[in-house]
Amino acid sequence: MRTTVGIIGAGPAGLLLARLLHNAGIDSVVLESRDRAYVERRQRAGILEQGTVDVLRAAGAGERMDREGLRHDGIELRFDRRRHRVDFPALTGGRSVMVYAQTEVCKDLIALQLTEGGPLLFEAEALAVEGAGTDRPRVRFRHGGAEGAGGAEEVLECDYVVGCDGFWGVARAAVPGGRTFERTYPFGWLGILADVAPSHDELVYARHDRGFALLSMRSPSVSRLYLQVPADTDAGDWSDERIWDELERRFETDDGWTLNRGPLTQKSVTPMRSYVHEPMRHGRLFLAGDAAHIVPPTGAKGLNLAVGDVVTFARALAHRTETGSDDLLDAYSATCLRRVWQAERFSYDMTTMLHSAPGATPFEERLQRARLDRITSSRAAETDLAEGYTGFPIG
Amino acid sequence: MRTTVGIIGAGPAGLLLARLLHNAGIDSVVLESRDRAYVERRQRAGILEQGTVDVLRAAGAGERMDREGLRHDGIELRFDRRRHRVDFPALTGGRSVMVYAQTEVCKDLIALQLTEGGPLLFEAEALAVEGAGTDRPRVRFRHGGAEGAGGAEEVLECDYVVGCDGFWGVARAAVPGGRTFERTYPFGWLGILADVAPSHDELVYARHDRGFALLSMRSPSVSRLYLQVPADTDAGDWSDERIWDELERRFETDDGWTLNRGPLTQKSVTPMRSYVHEPMRHGRLFLAGDAAHIVPPTGAKGLNLAVGDVVTFARALAHRTETGSDDLLDAYSATCLRRVWQAERFSYDMTTMLHSAPGATPFEERLQRARLDRITSSRAAETDLAEGYTGFPIG
Repeated sequence: MRTTVGIIGAGPAGLLLARLLHNAGIDSVVLESRDRAYVERRQRAGILEQGTVDVLRAAGAGERMDREGLRHDGIELRFDRRRHRVDFPALTGGRSVMVYAQTEVCKDLIALQLTEGGPLLFEAEALAVEGAGTDRPRVRFRHGGAEGAGGAEEVLECDYVVGCDGFWGVARAAVPGGRTFERTYPFGWLGILADVAPSHDELVYARHDRGFALLSMRSPSVSRLYLQVPADTDAGDWSDERIWDELERRFETDDGWTLNRGPLTQKSVTPMRSYVHEPMRHGRLFLAGDAAHIVPPTGAKGLNLAVGDVVTFARALAHRTETGSDDLLDAYSATCLRRVWQAERFSYDMTTMLHSAPGATPFEERLQRARLDRITSSRAAETDLAEGYTGFPIG
Repeated sequence: MRTTVGIIGAGPAGLLLARLLHNAGIDSVVLESRDRAYVERRQRAGILEQGTVDVLRAAGAGERMDREGLRHDGIELRFDRRRHRVDFPALTGGRSVMVYAQTEVCKDLIALQLTEGGPLLFEAEALAVEGAGTDRPRVRFRHGGAEGAGGAEEVLECDYVVGCDGFWGVARAAVPGGRTFERTYPFGWLGILADVAPSHDELVYARHDRGFALLSMRSPSVSRLYLQVPADTDAGDWSDERIWDELERRFETDDGWTLNRGPLTQKSVTPMRSYVHEPMRHGRLFLAGDAAHIVPPTGAKGLNLAVGDVVTFARALAHRTETGSDDLLDAYSATCLRRVWQAERFSYDMTTMLHSAPGATPFEERLQRARLDRITSSRAAETDLAEGYTGFPIG
């Protein structure tokens, strides 16, 4: 099998890249280890930055998003039982975000790819990237089931390979040398999906002495809520009632705000990690999204970073196709990393400002409070946050 | 001896407070343990915020400052051999800072106090504050020399006592209970005074892999320079040549900037500490300046915080004199602490952004770089810094 761009992974990064390349007249093949149903069910992010929304629209993948997505013009910061709204358009010259789940982005892109795009192979598990340093990189993969269960090993020959295969994927292993930058946090998020109308029409980020809590939503009838918990928490130890009671406590205000309760449809614990691999490229192998970097979810940056990476790659390859110049491909890693590090910084700052760190000193707790006071009293500091939340420029 | 306000300490806080009270028609006595020559020689801060400049002028103590002080409209951030200027007036609507040494502020205020003000006793060492919880607090002090060397113990009876006696003073010990918030840093500053024209007309804050460096000045012919060094450094281990060589390395740029060398007149190591005591008041005893809080010098905030405290106290007492209401005196601690914590946050952030922390992870080093990149690429982030540097509002 032969293609111009071999794409490993049919998450939002790989699927969007295939779409962008298709629109630029460049052929690609997408290899996805899971089946379609799994990919379309995988719960992940739900906040699209202004730039991501613009990219999806321009790629012809924004139709249902614009119909069903919820445009949000702000978030609420909640602390000391008080509420402070951050008004994005007022602070950033009109920018906003869109609440539209990653699962829905994936469904839209898969449908487009299967009707208009190049090959998208499910249950095609990449085993290794070979020859990344040559002109003819290859992806070895097993297709159609595990070894001994009908699966057969095949090779995808490419001009370029883009690893969109996430933190646990094989692509990063084919980038020799390089450096990793990492931080793990001593807490995680216990996340729930519940069939109940969201208790607020925008996201609520709550700092509380008992720990952080986040109120989010997937739709006007589905709430997504999170509680900071110790990193080793077993979701099974938390009854539904205990979760609602704890959420209620952390969101409590002085103005009588109430939390809607409803049946839980999912419950799981997410670890919190910051991670960057540099460089994001070796020869003709390029890393994009979680394959190269992870952010804690507090800043809602993971999906949006992946979008920036694949936009940068698609532009660089189109530039080469048009001009013959490798300039932009050669700049890929440095270009992406500038934005990646701003998102890492933003996500780290949001995380440390809002979570109770076990072992934090009283001085650090007061600093945390002073950061919230600053954001709620200085337009400059609030604008800095709003710019970060609605997204750093791509490229 | 009897007065309305007993002031312990003739640093800038105590001296300015005496001046403010005098202008409001309230009598005070200042007790200072050292002699006049010592106080006028004690090297400390040199950057006056816009608000401090305004207060000194309004107090009638700004005449020589306006003649000899150097108004600075910005600072330079230097990293990766590049230079970035932060333009204060452009970012803050016209605010700036003044380079005028604490020694000069003290000289001006001492001269005013001795000609126009109430008693200012040198070599009057406060031993204890008693009866802070009563209507008649007292300061026991020894005047005129140590015990057995001519000194005699006396008592200053007051309506109010203000402890402006610094971190090591006796006033804080008379505030029972309360909480302290503290952070020490694993590095200090090796500071020099040199008889040479400053190499740049504004302060230069340099982040370098070898450590932080700061270029400052006392006058057009006296440079003040600092090097980050390990906390346990003995200044005697650093020859003049080694200091200049190291400064040169850390300030190096790609555009051929050069460092002027000259004879050193002083050389010492300053530890770095963040410290806050809450509350800043007990009964009729009020803490001001370093007696209640310490900041690392990176943000140039120490003297300016002290000014905010004594302005707040003087206003509150004048309010009581005019209206009979204790409201503002009762709010003193909370009012001061809001500003104190913003300055603590600012000083902590400037310090961590610019110093090499021993044991910093590669992730933390990249974060540091990302913070500098953010400030030099976002007007909002740069404004946040400029607002902090030129000063948080008093009261």
